[in-house]
Amino acid sequence: MDTITWADETVRADLAAVREQSPFIYGLTNFVAANLSANALLALGAGPAFGAAPGWTASFPAGASGVFINGASLMSAATPEQLLEAAATAQAAGTPWVLDPVAVGAGAPAYDEVMTALLAHKPSIIRGNASEVAALAGGAGGSGVDSTLDSSEVVDVVAQLASQLGAVVAVSGPVDYISDGTRTVAVPGGSAFMPRVTGTGCSLGAVNAAFLAVTNPFDAAVAAHVVYAEAGERAGARSTGTGSFAVAFVDELSNL
Amino acid sequence: MDTITWADETVRADLAAVREQSPFIYGLTNFVAANLSANALLALGAGPAFGAAPGWTASFPAGASGVFINGASLMSAATPEQLLEAAATAQAAGTPWVLDPVAVGAGAPAYDEVMTALLAHKPSIIRGNASEVAALAGGAGGSGVDSTLDSSEVVDVVAQLASQLGAVVAVSGPVDYISDGTRTVAVPGGSAFMPRVTGTGCSLGAVNAAFLAVTNPFDAAVAAHVVYAEAGERAGARSTGTGSFAVAFVDELSNL
Amino acid sequence: MDTITWADETVRADLAAVREQSPFIYGLTNFVAANLSANALLALGAGPAFGAAPGWTASFPAGASGVFINGASLMSAATPEQLLEAAATAQAAGTPWVLDPVAVGAGAPAYDEVMTALLAHKPSIIRGNASEVAALAGGAGGSGVDSTLDSSEVVDVVAQLASQLGAVVAVSGPVDYISDGTRTVAVPGGSAFMPRVTGTGCSLGAVNAAFLAVTNPFDAAVAAHVVYAEAGERAGARSTGTGSFAVAFVDELSNL
Repeated sequence: MDTITWADETVRADLAAVREQSPFIYGLTNFVAANLSANALLALGAGPAFGAAPGWTASFPAGASGVFINGASLMSAATPEQLLEAAATAQAAGTPWVLDPVAVGAGAPAYDEVMTALLAHKPSIIRGNASEVAALAGGAGGSGVDSTLDSSEVVDVVAQLASQLGAVVAVSGPVDYISDGTRTVAVPGGSAFMPRVTGTGCSLGAVNAAFLAVTNPFDAAVAAHVVYAEAGERAGARSTGTGSFAVAFVDELSNL
Repeated sequence: MDTITWADETVRADLAAVREQSPFIYGLTNFVAANLSANALLALGAGPAFGAAPGWTASFPAGASGVFINGASLMSAATPEQLLEAAATAQAAGTPWVLDPVAVGAGAPAYDEVMTALLAHKPSIIRGNASEVAALAGGAGGSGVDSTLDSSEVVDVVAQLASQLGAVVAVSGPVDYISDGTRTVAVPGGSAFMPRVTGTGCSLGAVNAAFLAVTNPFDAAVAAHVVYAEAGERAGARSTGTGSFAVAFVDELSNL
Repeated sequence: MDTITWADETVRADLAAVREQSPFIYGLTNFVAANLSANALLALGAGPAFGAAPGWTASFPAGASGVFINGASLMSAATPEQLLEAAATAQAAGTPWVLDPVAVGAGAPAYDEVMTALLAHKPSIIRGNASEVAALAGGAGGSGVDSTLDSSEVVDVVAQLASQLGAVVAVSGPVDYISDGTRTVAVPGGSAFMPRVTGTGCSLGAVNAAFLAVTNPFDAAVAAHVVYAEAGERAGARSTGTGSFAVAFVDELSNL
């Protein structure tokens, strides 16, 4: 399996394209991670707008260059119908989109059904932690929003799910794995602080959408994860706790 | 056109009044900008309460000394009816209020209708970016929540809209312009980091409401924009990225 | 009355237990305080999940080791029925839970009724500021979310309310007071920056739930308040404004 890092030329070119094109990224996300997600997108040069205000889910996904739908947006005044409308609008307009099925499989079937229904609208990228990926593939989920598996335990599941769904699937963990069903690559790096800062996973879903605006789904997912891992590593090296890490991480994203 | 900066005695006196009176400011805002908006108000000495919990929109605007309504609160479990109730309650109680019509004109007519309906309840100040001000005046809007125009392109529109609506209108940009229809002033300053940090515009709407509690709408809007520009400039001078800018900005607001 | 500080061995042992067990804490909270609340829990080693997505209020409180319900979650797409369902689910499963009746008594009877109805599901800990505690005991409330009383003015009310409700009651202020109706203790410390940073009170509600996962309600409330006061004092000593305080506070929680 290939390992891809910040030394990769394609990743750097993709980031330069985001900064140059400043794509409009529309997202539905939860209120815990919204601020960090918007700041991560702005730090990379994208222009975010979030939320399901009246008429937005029917129009903004069509005008956007990339869309992401975070399942936990269902706790933020977005209804299942609005999530499905946003996904359908993106699909109809040809806007590539990212599905982040937060906490799928964690014990709430009504919620899981919405996540499964979204798959019909063909996300380009599906990202999650190891328990979420395992649950989507029919296995057991985790506890709340946290994974009870390590990413290395689901590498085969990632490739199989990508093949089955015809999408790029990415799993986060100490090492991230990304597959389109044919190729699977590893992205190391990041920081031990990352799982201890809320919203880092959700924000990564947003960042995937920014790269979808400038390249194909596989390269987009790889670039998003590499940029994230590199900024996380740099931020971790100069942080004195989880609070200062969150600040340094956005700084590093803005300076990459 | 006059230019007003932090050297202005009236601005400083108005800030001192906010710190001394600690006015209760009630707002409806979105979940991306809520945290920064509350911290900006607290940093200046005001006491914020946000949101549309049961009964709040019918009572809190009457007890508050200033109110702000951010259109994107419609993505945060506040209904159009609750926004209108908050505006009507403020109007009936004589509480001055600020309208921030985020993303008006960006392509969602159902949303735009709510923004227009709010005007009937006579906001004292309307603030937005150049595309939002242009859209309110009948022109084309921007893309998502970002402006596709520079503030300098809408100076005449600002004055005309203020005259037409009988309100103070303020537009944000590299230079801010504020008009009551008769006088128009320019407020320079701020930082290039500001448009790259989420919620800076929305928080400015909240800060306008804090100054409405202590002075007339024109002076309130001027003071809010000057204080914002000065804190932004100071924070920008000592920040190493967009993450540290957001922190330094609140620090500077708290220390002005 | 005894005074308890970070020198206390039981408090340190309880914090060590949270870090070791990493309890899953489920909460309903508002969108202003959600980010800080999640980061405070993560900084102490707990695993948070928040919000009322479909099915979550009926299942997550049963799987969690501690639950907290913040009244202002009613402004965040959680309905009164969902708050009551979360409380009932926690009660039925034997999961101890914290009630934080934000702004109760501040002038919205419809909201206050929900807070009172929640008491029937037997919270283990009730926390608030002095005005909220006074309002729950039948007195006058404050203005918005801020207290108009000092914590020292309600020490007797805290003890009486604890006895009446059969719960631990804790009031925040320059000195915090905690009572189970029989014993009342004082927790000094913290920082003058704390009431000037949004969400510090709400996050304390979340932290109480983390300690409920590892010890009895009285010791849990004491440990939560002492840890908070100690981290606040350390953060205050090295902060240059309210923005940097918020960051340093999370750092200190993560390093205690």
